[in-house]
Amino acid sequence: MLQTEVRIHQASTQYPVHVGYNILGQLRTVLDSVRFPKHIALITTEALHRTLFPAVGRALVEAGRTAMPCFVPEGDAAKSTDTYVRVLEEIAKSGRSGEAGIMALGGGALGDLAGFVAGTIRRGVPYGILPTTLLSQVDSSIGGKVAINLREGKNLVGLFYHPAFVLSDAAFLKSLTPRQVSSGFAEVVKYALIADAEFLGFLEGRSEALLALDPDALVETVFRCVKIKADVVGLDPNDDVAAKGIRAKLNFGHTIGHALEAAAGYDTLTHGEAISIGMTCAADLSRRMGLLEPAAAERVENVLRRFRLPLRLTDVGRDGALPMTLGPILHHMKFDKKFSGSVRRFVLLERIGKAALSDKIPSEWVEEVLRERGAA
Amino acid sequence: MLQTEVRIHQASTQYPVHVGYNILGQLRTVLDSVRFPKHIALITTEALHRTLFPAVGRALVEAGRTAMPCFVPEGDAAKSTDTYVRVLEEIAKSGRSGEAGIMALGGGALGDLAGFVAGTIRRGVPYGILPTTLLSQVDSSIGGKVAINLREGKNLVGLFYHPAFVLSDAAFLKSLTPRQVSSGFAEVVKYALIADAEFLGFLEGRSEALLALDPDALVETVFRCVKIKADVVGLDPNDDVAAKGIRAKLNFGHTIGHALEAAAGYDTLTHGEAISIGMTCAADLSRRMGLLEPAAAERVENVLRRFRLPLRLTDVGRDGALPMTLGPILHHMKFDKKFSGSVRRFVLLERIGKAALSDKIPSEWVEEVLRERGAA
Repeated sequence: MLQTEVRIHQASTQYPVHVGYNILGQLRTVLDSVRFPKHIALITTEALHRTLFPAVGRALVEAGRTAMPCFVPEGDAAKSTDTYVRVLEEIAKSGRSGEAGIMALGGGALGDLAGFVAGTIRRGVPYGILPTTLLSQVDSSIGGKVAINLREGKNLVGLFYHPAFVLSDAAFLKSLTPRQVSSGFAEVVKYALIADAEFLGFLEGRSEALLALDPDALVETVFRCVKIKADVVGLDPNDDVAAKGIRAKLNFGHTIGHALEAAAGYDTLTHGEAISIGMTCAADLSRRMGLLEPAAAERVENVLRRFRLPLRLTDVGRDGALPMTLGPILHHMKFDKKFSGSVRRFVLLERIGKAALSDKIPSEWVEEVLRERGAA
Repeated sequence: MLQTEVRIHQASTQYPVHVGYNILGQLRTVLDSVRFPKHIALITTEALHRTLFPAVGRALVEAGRTAMPCFVPEGDAAKSTDTYVRVLEEIAKSGRSGEAGIMALGGGALGDLAGFVAGTIRRGVPYGILPTTLLSQVDSSIGGKVAINLREGKNLVGLFYHPAFVLSDAAFLKSLTPRQVSSGFAEVVKYALIADAEFLGFLEGRSEALLALDPDALVETVFRCVKIKADVVGLDPNDDVAAKGIRAKLNFGHTIGHALEAAAGYDTLTHGEAISIGMTCAADLSRRMGLLEPAAAERVENVLRRFRLPLRLTDVGRDGALPMTLGPILHHMKFDKKFSGSVRRFVLLERIGKAALSDKIPSEWVEEVLRERGAA
């Protein structure tokens, strides 16, 4: 038997993230600086096309670009295999797929779909993101994780595919409902908790201005979150086991949070609400493990409360109480990708501003903490 | 506007390619050396499952692996979006997608589909290839190009995704028809023409032994082709424009060949037959450009003839003549991905063993050469 090796040299890359308020006027400079193609397939929803496209379309014309809008449904329906194939066919049919770039104008689910389309059509074409929700500006637009859903589960099919640029215009957030704004702050608070105690102080002090979408406070907040996430994913771009969980700490609150989302049904709890309750549970577990001071766990609750986020399952739901039993939550935790094999790896807090991983959490503790937070 | 950079560090990688004859007994060593998962989704066809799976299945059991067969249709039907989604759902439904590897047992189309599944399910799982045709052993299993087709065209959706290993057992080729064997040698001859004059001499001397599937001659041939392709793709893994066409030279004979395939209908001409005629056309153009000596162009024809490959469109087809007019061929050349933008870039020969790129070919010459080769 003869043997040879194929050696694949991969070049490291980087891309710019622009954050500001009313910055569409600078789109031309942004596009030109990364040599973004002239023809653009703009993936968006019909609602965003009505509210934001007038301004975005004008900026694209001024930037010398032509945009073909490509509509996808709201929310997770954008991430079905049906939508994926339809969007691919639509772009291919336009006859310009060979030279077109893909741009996403929308939230996290839409960006996940658009990035997967961009990463796979013609083995990858230039991709730009205009994130329109707080959650996508601080989280999903950074890090290169793109994915679609299967019937069997969320995000089961995807890639690591990085955009050519991200332009986060905080003025886009004016179209969000108060519930969407609050939900976005769950991930914002998460960054402060796992990586930056000083930032938590900033959030505590500016929570009212932030909920009122004060431009300066928003831009500073989005920018700080982007920098924290960029540092983490730069060290561990492919979420490797070998990287010893550098990127895993971004999942603080998510092991339980994802299970709550799945058990409640994805339209009942928003991602941010589920993560908020998940973070209170993770803080409880951190305290039980003797890692986190009781006063610090209290501070976690207080900052979430400031952003009008739920701390317990009984804080949400139409009648003021979301009926949820323990069984389905624990079932969904087994299917969560954050469990590596059969070991339950939790992200805990050592202190405000520093995360730690643990696979030593007794499963009874998880159940007890969930009961304390309102699971029946 | 604030700006930051996300820096993505990519590690370079390598993977082994094993070539031999009756080497399934070494599958365990191969799998263990790359820590291939215990559970394997084996993508194959029903026909290959009947002929080759008994031996492959036994080798997998001896290697301590469990394999779930996952059937796809023969030929390009394996590369439809429908098959892609069905295979993803089947693997996800098995409940082991989180820990399973993907293995392809089949030819090039099957490998393209299996690689795209492996590269996208859970953002990429370990992938191994057991290529069963000469074409896939010398060409598609090396280089990481995986893809599926859209209604609008072939290979419009895909990735660069590299396997964890390739095991090319030349004994698999015994199940091929003589036409399939000949077709595979078109790509073999191509490697010699673009990169290794001494190898062309070897092929000329051993053509009868090779067509009779002589083990030693086959193993040496497959191994030499793999090494040539590995060297080229290692230098230019992502087929970058910036790499100045290093990888493009692998497309010798393919610009016209792909157009012939598409114009004839993919089931009329095999890929190898189309490439064979494409190479004679490219040799003609090289001679017209004053690059290639007439005697060398003659030698190109002779070696293809030795491997029972067609030199003219009139050499193939049911009645000894494939009716094909110029119009559809030229139409399909416009859609070929090898044309960068509107510039026709051709791969020519400077001499036997050395390719050269040219975008200066007059389009009338292309038409004349095609007419000389039998287009009406």
